[in-house]
Amino acid sequence: MSKIIRVNMTTKKVNIEEVPEKYVGLGGRALTSQVILDEVPPTCHPLGPKNKLVFAPGLLSGTNAPSSGRLSVGGKSPLTGGIKEANAGGITSQKMASLGIKAIIVEGKAEKGTYILRVTADDVELIPADDLAGKGTYELTAILKERYNEKAGVICIGPAGEMKMQSAGITNNDPEGNSSRYAGRGGLGAVMGSKGLKAIVVECDKAFDAPVKDKERFKTAAKKFAQILASHPVTGEGLPKFGTNVLMNIINEAGTLPTRNFSRGRFEGASEVSGEKLAEVATQRGGKATHACHPGCVMRCSNVYPMPDGKVCAPIEYETAWCFGPNLEISDLDVVAKLNYICNDVGLDTIEAGCTLGVLMEAGVLPFGDGEAAIKALEEVGKGTPLGRIIGAGAAVAGKVYGVTRVPAVKGQGIPAYDPRSCKGNGVTYATTPMGADHTAGYAVTANILKVGGYVDPNKEEGQIELSRNLQIATAAVDATGLCLFVAFAVLDNEEGLPTIVEMINAQYGTNLTVDDVTALGQQILKNEREFNKKAGFTKADDRLPEFFYEEELEPHNTKFELKEELDEVFNF
Amino acid sequence: MSKIIRVNMTTKKVNIEEVPEKYVGLGGRALTSQVILDEVPPTCHPLGPKNKLVFAPGLLSGTNAPSSGRLSVGGKSPLTGGIKEANAGGITSQKMASLGIKAIIVEGKAEKGTYILRVTADDVELIPADDLAGKGTYELTAILKERYNEKAGVICIGPAGEMKMQSAGITNNDPEGNSSRYAGRGGLGAVMGSKGLKAIVVECDKAFDAPVKDKERFKTAAKKFAQILASHPVTGEGLPKFGTNVLMNIINEAGTLPTRNFSRGRFEGASEVSGEKLAEVATQRGGKATHACHPGCVMRCSNVYPMPDGKVCAPIEYETAWCFGPNLEISDLDVVAKLNYICNDVGLDTIEAGCTLGVLMEAGVLPFGDGEAAIKALEEVGKGTPLGRIIGAGAAVAGKVYGVTRVPAVKGQGIPAYDPRSCKGNGVTYATTPMGADHTAGYAVTANILKVGGYVDPNKEEGQIELSRNLQIATAAVDATGLCLFVAFAVLDNEEGLPTIVEMINAQYGTNLTVDDVTALGQQILKNEREFNKKAGFTKADDRLPEFFYEEELEPHNTKFELKEELDEVFNF
Repeated sequence: MSKIIRVNMTTKKVNIEEVPEKYVGLGGRALTSQVILDEVPPTCHPLGPKNKLVFAPGLLSGTNAPSSGRLSVGGKSPLTGGIKEANAGGITSQKMASLGIKAIIVEGKAEKGTYILRVTADDVELIPADDLAGKGTYELTAILKERYNEKAGVICIGPAGEMKMQSAGITNNDPEGNSSRYAGRGGLGAVMGSKGLKAIVVECDKAFDAPVKDKERFKTAAKKFAQILASHPVTGEGLPKFGTNVLMNIINEAGTLPTRNFSRGRFEGASEVSGEKLAEVATQRGGKATHACHPGCVMRCSNVYPMPDGKVCAPIEYETAWCFGPNLEISDLDVVAKLNYICNDVGLDTIEAGCTLGVLMEAGVLPFGDGEAAIKALEEVGKGTPLGRIIGAGAAVAGKVYGVTRVPAVKGQGIPAYDPRSCKGNGVTYATTPMGADHTAGYAVTANILKVGGYVDPNKEEGQIELSRNLQIATAAVDATGLCLFVAFAVLDNEEGLPTIVEMINAQYGTNLTVDDVTALGQQILKNEREFNKKAGFTKADDRLPEFFYEEELEPHNTKFELKEELDEVFNF
Repeated sequence: MSKIIRVNMTTKKVNIEEVPEKYVGLGGRALTSQVILDEVPPTCHPLGPKNKLVFAPGLLSGTNAPSSGRLSVGGKSPLTGGIKEANAGGITSQKMASLGIKAIIVEGKAEKGTYILRVTADDVELIPADDLAGKGTYELTAILKERYNEKAGVICIGPAGEMKMQSAGITNNDPEGNSSRYAGRGGLGAVMGSKGLKAIVVECDKAFDAPVKDKERFKTAAKKFAQILASHPVTGEGLPKFGTNVLMNIINEAGTLPTRNFSRGRFEGASEVSGEKLAEVATQRGGKATHACHPGCVMRCSNVYPMPDGKVCAPIEYETAWCFGPNLEISDLDVVAKLNYICNDVGLDTIEAGCTLGVLMEAGVLPFGDGEAAIKALEEVGKGTPLGRIIGAGAAVAGKVYGVTRVPAVKGQGIPAYDPRSCKGNGVTYATTPMGADHTAGYAVTANILKVGGYVDPNKEEGQIELSRNLQIATAAVDATGLCLFVAFAVLDNEEGLPTIVEMINAQYGTNLTVDDVTALGQQILKNEREFNKKAGFTKADDRLPEFFYEEELEPHNTKFELKEELDEVFNF
């Protein structure tokens, strides 16, 4: 039943392959990283024909395991030069899993032209689609749904990806058809663009049709897991009520909200762009304060924000509200929504775009706090002007272009919404994850700020290495399952959480995995990714934060980041 | 007598220091690289206060040893992220040596403002000079000579360096006052700009006043060395007659002239931008086909080219004629001169600028062969527009900004005027030198093309590793002496060459060095540089050519570059 679809963009050949024995127990990030390590030369040009792009649903995707519809996308990143896995919600992962698709591997490079890959239960077809070149993701998704199937999952890139901008993301649609669920980070959209693939249309009416060996056992476990999520204050209350942006006021209060390109830890206008404010405005305007990005998600942490121009931005996540808000000293939610919408439509990672605008403001190219200037600058991206190109190339490149020393990026990727000096566990993750600066790779905000899974003082060095290590291992494993990372909030505080995940996997596949096996899987994923990066030329020097975090104190706690050699202990397991 | 001048741009303090024992036997590149290794944290931001800039005359500079007036400039490169030594002719090195200055070390970073360092026999002074901010190098040099001393050596940067563009160079003036002798590569001009230092004015009327212990012995050796140079066909005939650009027709004939951004090895318009043509036009217009860049140079390989607009471009070197000529498919010498002049005035490395324009043409931003478009684009640099900034950031960054896969750069630095596929010895040097792609670091054109110092087939792998290794060691040693690298043509073919250089050093310093000691010095320099780069995060993966040289055959010899792991043998000594 299970299959791998292999698409060669050079020859335009599509092959349906059996799943090799070694890939059977893998899914999501475990599978994408393994395929990249096995098949992509680590030193190849990320935009050349030797790079590959792998789309894989998680092990539990396509079942009614709660919040299990994440789609993993893997490749060599043009932004970091290392291995990349970015994952997204949206409806496509479940459809792929329901069609028995273990992975879609896209390789080679079309010499010219724009193509669509159409996947149905009976057929896989590569279709020339030059008429769709240059389309924004919203229009493109609408056209493809109309052309092929209104219920289709549409994975696609915008003009930024087609222009091979190295912070271009890959999106897919939510249940309402909004093309805004991004595997955003690391520029995998540029890889897709370099290959000439504009979209993948996955036609399947069912969300939960993946084969399950022991249905009763699975049902029991899934129900238990839903209860575990519902009973935790973060996954059962905070996220469902205000979404991810519930963090804005919390992180501001904690004094680790990066403000004015990481110049201080609190922003006076934070509440104006907070989740509470968002819920209020969205509700007033007929939007939604809470929204599920894929069927079966019980946390419903997303939102639908109607903008003054009549368009809808869905969602505004915390990271995006931060990077276009406090990071740029902008306290106008409508400006944030507009910047978010532009990114979604042109196909750009919001976090990277926000970090890049911060660097440009640091350079004096545009003023901090000037929302209109930020919008005008971001609109250049779609036009492909030199300024638009610089923005599309990300924060690290923008820093080089403008000679800026305060550039918040690790391994070429912009640092997200928690200052590493007063959330040091996240600092360890930013520095060491094979992904480049990435909060989701080992989200120490849990123990540092939210006091989930224990407490580790965010302003002290003690315990941060171990905290980040354990979270990175657990995260890699979760990213293999297709479960949303946010389940971790509940799992960290409930000793039945992880066993219940393992129970669901065993029920689905008829396996006898233990919790230790799942930990070992997380470790193996990280080892694979580190191996790829080492071969690509990464060293300890790449596992450090930018110099200014070691030199400048962050208000209000007046802390610096001081971990250096200790960071090399993170992967001692 | 001998001293080190240390300038702290943060505190504005100038210290005159004794030369530490360990630095006494070092000069030029040997000294700059040792100081950088000793004093600069390898992972520091190259444009931050922890980077340093070291100016050092060679061991023989300031004597009448023929062609010994090279000035070495060292620092951490913003372009490569590694250690950098760039050296230049011009008159300043001899003046520094004549004043007993072993090195000028510039450290820290002015918070704001523009400064001039004035050095005389009696005093060293840091002078605020905000009125000179933004000046082009030609005007600036003229002002400073008028303001302080008409015979002064003026080391300076243009607006590109002030704007911290990472391919900005550092120039100084030739005997006629033209500010066009560039320590161009690696962006050290941006380092100078980041520190707020616009120029160093060295006032000394004498070119040959460095102390010499045994004057008679020195005179005999220097005379012998002059004869060795005069009697070799390259240093005694080719270079003095047509300058470095005598290479244009030779390299074209050899089929290794990179044309159209390294797409083929011959250019139909090569003769139109050749040294022969240059000599003809320059002479017709009242310029000079031959010209010494510093007093006492017997090779006189430079030139003075009057442009149609009445300005003078001096010189047009082969590398520049290539990068703006064949590399862009431009066969108009006046266009080449204009592009060269813009770079000299704005303060940009010509090779990097040419490589970058090639990448932009590859990206379709401007058309190949369009001289007017190239001029217009290059004029953006001084204006600091987004396009100008991209050009100033160099080929590798431009490649990232425009998603180009065919980017001729190693360690972030553009590849010069010999295609590595049909001049494989140079390919080995480009890949492995700690400097980033650099033809001068191990100029295998000698044995590959010119049949100087033996013959190694340029299209075959055999012997290239050893050739490059030996040349890199010899070059590092020569770069320590202040001798122009071109003396190597004669030295490689004359067994008395190297002993005569050693004899001059011994006569000057009263030492008892052997040829083996000088070889050991060359090896030590490379080891120091490699050590710095390793600590900065460089690995074997950085010692490779771009992928396309391994994938695409070069016409007319239809060769690829195939050396990979073998490259790791270069530094086995």
